Amino acid sequence: MTEKLLGYKGKALHFLKEVEAEVGDTIRVSKGKGTYEGVLIPRSEFSDGNHVVIKLKNGYNIGILVTQETKIERVGAGQKPTFSTSPLPKQQEELPEVTILSTGGTIASRVDYRTGGVRPALNANDLYSIVPELSEIATIKAEILYTVFSENITPKHWIKLAKEIAKNIKEGVAGIVVAHGTDTIGYTAAALSFALQNIPVPIVLVGSQRSADRPSSDAATNLIGAVTVASKAPFAEVVVAMHRTTSDKAIALHRGTKVRKCHTSRRDAFKSINTLPLAILEDGELRMLTQDYQRRNPKREVIVKPSFNEKVALVKFHPGLNRGVIDWYLDQGYEGIVLEGTGLGHVSSQCFATLRRAIAENCLVAMTSQCIWGRVNMNVYDTGRDLIKIGVIPLGDMLSETALVKIMWVLAQTKSVDEAKKLLAKNVTHEVSDRTVYQDYER
Amino acid sequence: MTEKLLGYKGKALHFLKEVEAEVGDTIRVSKGKGTYEGVLIPRSEFSDGNHVVIKLKNGYNIGILVTQETKIERVGAGQKPTFSTSPLPKQQEELPEVTILSTGGTIASRVDYRTGGVRPALNANDLYSIVPELSEIATIKAEILYTVFSENITPKHWIKLAKEIAKNIKEGVAGIVVAHGTDTIGYTAAALSFALQNIPVPIVLVGSQRSADRPSSDAATNLIGAVTVASKAPFAEVVVAMHRTTSDKAIALHRGTKVRKCHTSRRDAFKSINTLPLAILEDGELRMLTQDYQRRNPKREVIVKPSFNEKVALVKFHPGLNRGVIDWYLDQGYEGIVLEGTGLGHVSSQCFATLRRAIAENCLVAMTSQCIWGRVNMNVYDTGRDLIKIGVIPLGDMLSETALVKIMWVLAQTKSVDEAKKLLAKNVTHEVSDRTVYQDYER
Repeated sequence: MTEKLLGYKGKALHFLKEVEAEVGDTIRVSKGKGTYEGVLIPRSEFSDGNHVVIKLKNGYNIGILVTQETKIERVGAGQKPTFSTSPLPKQQEELPEVTILSTGGTIASRVDYRTGGVRPALNANDLYSIVPELSEIATIKAEILYTVFSENITPKHWIKLAKEIAKNIKEGVAGIVVAHGTDTIGYTAAALSFALQNIPVPIVLVGSQRSADRPSSDAATNLIGAVTVASKAPFAEVVVAMHRTTSDKAIALHRGTKVRKCHTSRRDAFKSINTLPLAILEDGELRMLTQDYQRRNPKREVIVKPSFNEKVALVKFHPGLNRGVIDWYLDQGYEGIVLEGTGLGHVSSQCFATLRRAIAENCLVAMTSQCIWGRVNMNVYDTGRDLIKIGVIPLGDMLSETALVKIMWVLAQTKSVDEAKKLLAKNVTHEVSDRTVYQDYER
Repeated sequence: MTEKLLGYKGKALHFLKEVEAEVGDTIRVSKGKGTYEGVLIPRSEFSDGNHVVIKLKNGYNIGILVTQETKIERVGAGQKPTFSTSPLPKQQEELPEVTILSTGGTIASRVDYRTGGVRPALNANDLYSIVPELSEIATIKAEILYTVFSENITPKHWIKLAKEIAKNIKEGVAGIVVAHGTDTIGYTAAALSFALQNIPVPIVLVGSQRSADRPSSDAATNLIGAVTVASKAPFAEVVVAMHRTTSDKAIALHRGTKVRKCHTSRRDAFKSINTLPLAILEDGELRMLTQDYQRRNPKREVIVKPSFNEKVALVKFHPGLNRGVIDWYLDQGYEGIVLEGTGLGHVSSQCFATLRRAIAENCLVAMTSQCIWGRVNMNVYDTGRDLIKIGVIPLGDMLSETALVKIMWVLAQTKSVDEAKKLLAKNVTHEVSDRTVYQDYER
């Protein structure tokens, strides 16, 4: 390996040396019917020896398999790539310690040059090679806990993650960052909010909507924001750190129980619902949007309650819903059902008989709204009053996703239905707002 | 009955006459421990003779049962109430004809003064007494089709409604207004968009978030807007007419397949998702926001396809989802399933086996996103590609609610799975946007 051809080995290195190409040069690679021109970029020490990787003019990187047919030309000394090609930066001893736990997802993945697909694979070295700035903010301990797409995360993963975070907190770190796929990061953030109480330092979940290889990636900005917050924010809460807008200007810190992915692909996909974000990080300055938060206090002892009852379902109501599906859940011994009702918290009166059965069988049935914004109010219309009489519990402005997680958690804390109802009625970790504040609802 | 005490009769009339109170006067009513002061307001010809109704200072109306203990004082000549106390306005012959079909909901209800609850009950006379302006816009034919809360509306209601609209269209009206509860107005609007094609005139669904008796009611503004659009809009499409903002300034006309109730209680609860509204009505002026729409043309012949297959389910994915619920639907002979997946269109790989079974059994399985905004793209990640290989159909930026309705409709048009897939892939009535435009997503 040579500094000028960092990370290249085997056949690829041989081909590049032959034309005296260096990292940063513009090269042209011809193979079969395809010709690609771009800036030669360095590879990590784990790369194979069979691919040459170039950054195309459109900003995307592609990897080209080198074969006997491949022809490489050095077109000229191009612009140097913008990322660091130097060895891993030295950790500075006096910086706060932050643990990064990786669970998978786009932020912890790179494009697989052979298939063009995005694959989860990121170790601590990869992290630094993508975001060298991290070493100036904190002393990082990186750990791969899982390598799973977040749609495959289950309550069992939440449990292991909560325990691992607690362990790291007890070791005295200044904060925790959890790299997580964005698809279900909101559910996991809610789970950690309930499972880890009285926390002394921030727990910051972070994801990215575009992988680190893409020019539009939000991975680096989000990760820098997350590590900054974990290392020095004044609060000790569970938050999700994601782009505030489509620009790289600001990172929003959303409370774990109030955040929702509201867009499939935009970098500002995450919104605090019915409330403002807890804080905004902009130009390195952290601005708290409320004074009602738990302060950072390293002496506080974390309370760990990492258990979830998986016999809880989320049922979205719709015209024509077959109430038999609720009966099926009851037949399976489900102990909790979150109804995602319409408007102020309604379902069809055709469901009433089955809901009566659920209550009679000590199943906890709670109501949220598929409107997402606003809060259920079951005192306005007959349907709501009927549902309350049946025993359905209105959940205020709680998100249906958070309600699912909370009831899973509540039903793992106690076997008594009365105790469970009390715990459900208690605002444990900001999951219900007393007053509704709109972040993004109004035009 | 006297003009000065319009609508009062029986005991209530007797008590008011005794103190020489007139409609518009400020009166004080004492009864037991309660004393209420406010402006005496008129009652409809259908009112009972036992209640006195006053508008309190806070703007709310209350009805007080008159008994032997009741004491009424006339405090003074108050401000006249703002609504008309004149007899029903005369219909003007030369105005366009509009049919208002009432299905129930808040816009077609009044507060029941005895219980304080909102009850559905509105006939054509009530309509005029609440919104006398209507008679200046169109010649109205009002018809009560149902009196149901919209959470109780089922596909069977859609069928009857579609047929009734078609009948009225064939009779040559200038437009149709459908008064509907807001909870499921979006589902019904989608249903009518598929069931009634090639329509010659506008079909305008309208609801209200606050009942007509409340000072903050949006009923009158929305209804005036809906009738205006039905009578003279240049387009012939199915739209939902609701407040554009929280002020009474503008009414948005949302396309029936792209609209969603996004707030439990705000007057601007309805949003066009991934697209702009079709038009805005502001200060009596209708402004089209696109030129890509079907023009009004009274000669066009409506195509009526009012059938829906109820064996279609909407399943919202969540961590810990029991895939057995999908098996249960298949066991019941369901022919279509809409998955409301995460992010770009994902569900856990634990569901794959059941989805394979669904496809093998000729069940149509389609993917939407619980993010709501954006569009599914199942080519980015392994999970998406796997789901496509299994046979799950990505639905672009179609709302999950619209997808449910469309598949119910598609599976009632053909018994062939291949034909159904072709129809599902076709953009029938703007349910998929080629290009995403954001109305309310950005800050």
